[in-house]
Amino acid sequence: MTPGTRQKMGPEANQEANQETNRTAERKNAVPMSGGGLVIQKYGGSSVATPEKIRNVALRVKARADAGSRLIVVVSAMGKTTDGLIALAKEVSASPPPREMDMLLATGEQVSAALLAMALNGLGVPAVSRNAFQLGIVTSENYSNARIRDIGLSLLREDFEKYKAVVVTGFQGITPEGDLTTLGRGGSDTSAVAMAAKALAMGETDVVCEIYSDVPGIFACDPNKVKGARKLDCITYEEMLELAALGAKVLHMRSVALARKYGVVLYCASTFSEERGTYVVKELPEWLENPVVTGVTVARNQMKFVVRRIPGSGDALSGIFRVLALAGANIDMISAASDNGLTFLAFTLQDGDAASAVEAVAGYMKEKGLEGWEIEPGVPVAKVSAVGDGMNAATGVAERVFSALQSRGIEILGISTSEINISILVEGSRADDAVNALAQEFGLIE
Amino acid sequence: MTPGTRQKMGPEANQEANQETNRTAERKNAVPMSGGGLVIQKYGGSSVATPEKIRNVALRVKARADAGSRLIVVVSAMGKTTDGLIALAKEVSASPPPREMDMLLATGEQVSAALLAMALNGLGVPAVSRNAFQLGIVTSENYSNARIRDIGLSLLREDFEKYKAVVVTGFQGITPEGDLTTLGRGGSDTSAVAMAAKALAMGETDVVCEIYSDVPGIFACDPNKVKGARKLDCITYEEMLELAALGAKVLHMRSVALARKYGVVLYCASTFSEERGTYVVKELPEWLENPVVTGVTVARNQMKFVVRRIPGSGDALSGIFRVLALAGANIDMISAASDNGLTFLAFTLQDGDAASAVEAVAGYMKEKGLEGWEIEPGVPVAKVSAVGDGMNAATGVAERVFSALQSRGIEILGISTSEINISILVEGSRADDAVNALAQEFGLIE
Repeated sequence: MTPGTRQKMGPEANQEANQETNRTAERKNAVPMSGGGLVIQKYGGSSVATPEKIRNVALRVKARADAGSRLIVVVSAMGKTTDGLIALAKEVSASPPPREMDMLLATGEQVSAALLAMALNGLGVPAVSRNAFQLGIVTSENYSNARIRDIGLSLLREDFEKYKAVVVTGFQGITPEGDLTTLGRGGSDTSAVAMAAKALAMGETDVVCEIYSDVPGIFACDPNKVKGARKLDCITYEEMLELAALGAKVLHMRSVALARKYGVVLYCASTFSEERGTYVVKELPEWLENPVVTGVTVARNQMKFVVRRIPGSGDALSGIFRVLALAGANIDMISAASDNGLTFLAFTLQDGDAASAVEAVAGYMKEKGLEGWEIEPGVPVAKVSAVGDGMNAATGVAERVFSALQSRGIEILGISTSEINISILVEGSRADDAVNALAQEFGLIE
Repeated sequence: MTPGTRQKMGPEANQEANQETNRTAERKNAVPMSGGGLVIQKYGGSSVATPEKIRNVALRVKARADAGSRLIVVVSAMGKTTDGLIALAKEVSASPPPREMDMLLATGEQVSAALLAMALNGLGVPAVSRNAFQLGIVTSENYSNARIRDIGLSLLREDFEKYKAVVVTGFQGITPEGDLTTLGRGGSDTSAVAMAAKALAMGETDVVCEIYSDVPGIFACDPNKVKGARKLDCITYEEMLELAALGAKVLHMRSVALARKYGVVLYCASTFSEERGTYVVKELPEWLENPVVTGVTVARNQMKFVVRRIPGSGDALSGIFRVLALAGANIDMISAASDNGLTFLAFTLQDGDAASAVEAVAGYMKEKGLEGWEIEPGVPVAKVSAVGDGMNAATGVAERVFSALQSRGIEILGISTSEINISILVEGSRADDAVNALAQEFGLIE
């Protein structure tokens, strides 16, 4: 038993994986129905929160196994287990060493993996659970936020001679020295995608990675805020990355980035229904009309600050951003202009960071002996973003965004754009109105 | 990271360890007070049941570390964790595969080990937690009742260059293939003794194995039943084995047998007080007066059955014992006699086994076509045993036992003896009277 070979998921693996992507994407519609090939499924904490839910997951896995697939099932810890373990740790130590924290947290996934393997065997599906030690999921040594370096698949190959399903502990790995690590937020998604990537790199040709949670797929906009919000059949990696970066929560950015890098086809759907979910792929199939805007998302609870009449030019600005970073304030949108040696600066940040940010700026000004400047009280804002690969080729998108908002009397407090994204700052209280306006303008409502 | 070398704890290790025993035993009185050497401590589930109790254990470990000892601290799962996990398993599957059960249960000790390591670091004691994978605690493949084959100590040696205390998950091991196993009842005690044995075999000369629980040591008889029952300073392995086999519960037989085999000095005491505990050693120190009877114990809830006039001789008896074994009835004391081709048989068993035993005997008689025999209704009895190494050399012990009981009107329903043990069957309702009579007769009350 060694924790896997040290073979890296290098550029060759990447190339090889990418050649597979298109072929796999073409087949995508068939995959969840038919059998065959290697299916990687990931079930999140809410999907395995109780023994009953675990039995439900086992039934889903059995259906796929009966259809002929080999399954790797990656599980998170049951429900709020991880939170409970963190609370325990805080009770024994004010600042637990990260190495011990990961040793503690890694138990959560081992519990759910063992229970799911039991449930599967109870249903007559030969299954075995495997943890990070057994599989050799080797990571960096960044405890609580480790990066996967390699996964040993040789044991899995042996397992598939005896078992129909291998249940794998998500969220965790081991260092080359054998210490346990955890992968940080979205860790179990990352585990699942990494296993799929490695399988592709090792010559498996029919691989899909299915991410199950309590939401039935990826929506063009938040269905809790926009009535009739459309669920997407397909979305590209780029679009999904933008949406995740801008606040959508179904998939963590990191797992999407990994899927893009290795050409892993993702499928997101609900554990609790048979409703059709959403594919995340490299390119939309040609027969699918390319929408200009695929999704609209919103980042709430931000504050916009304006600092006027800062004496001097660039020096003061870089100084201000340095003290803001030191104060832990995460600056988002920035605009600045100089006139007659006086600088105007506007920026946004999470409202929780506002107090320390204002203090940091004022402290810097005082320390440098700068006078005559003024900082306005923060204004609560939201950043509403329209994302779409098609935006690249289409013209007039910005104009459609502006007029949709202005026709509803929504003031535009700031703008930023990228190739496939246009983001608008609006008053915090108008966020939902703004999302609805854009959803209607770009046909994201059914 | 491999699970340790395959070097066995073989006869050489045994010999080497035994040479150490006497020297270590001589020093025993000094050990818990002074520092130096390698201390293996084991804390049971009730000792680490809450974060507060874990912090208490950390304080105890810190005191020993501050006095200069290197510590290996073996922990059980917190409180009733293991029971909770078993209940979860039963909810997902009626008959969970033992391999998955061990995967599940092994998480309990990892939680408490990580938490204790956190608490120690919080107190400024450099400490690290280690699980069965990391240490290479290699066992047989009997899931749920595995036997330790070897423990890798090389990692521990490295650890002691950086840490004062290594916290080890008790109760668990891994197979040579890397599957998790658990050691069954008394498993964490066994883990601790095995680590001490291996340390002795590898040349450590100053080793003691301290078993902490919620009882302050080993008593000559049950302090809950005998007022003033004396706590022992010292007891031999042989006596402890007899007492454990006969029903005393402080130490599991298996760990005592292992300690005897490898000459590991054991020390049993309470986690919750500074009260002096009990040593378990090869021989009592010469300055200690060798008592004839060291302890009295009792096995309750037994039934005595008498079968009269069984036709034939040995054949029928062996047939009866075979069907009793098949029925899962655990027979304890047996007496039999033949007269004129008819056999008289008396035996005892746990009262829970009584119904199936009677059924099995009757079924056998019927199957064989035997007639004229009769089975009397079962009588509730208890087996009261006096144990002592000194019994071997002393005369008149049996007589003192009989007269002590008879003078109190306690009827003797059966007798069995070994070299260091005399066991008497009495009516179940007189068990406590009998224990008190013997405790008084042999001076086991303070």
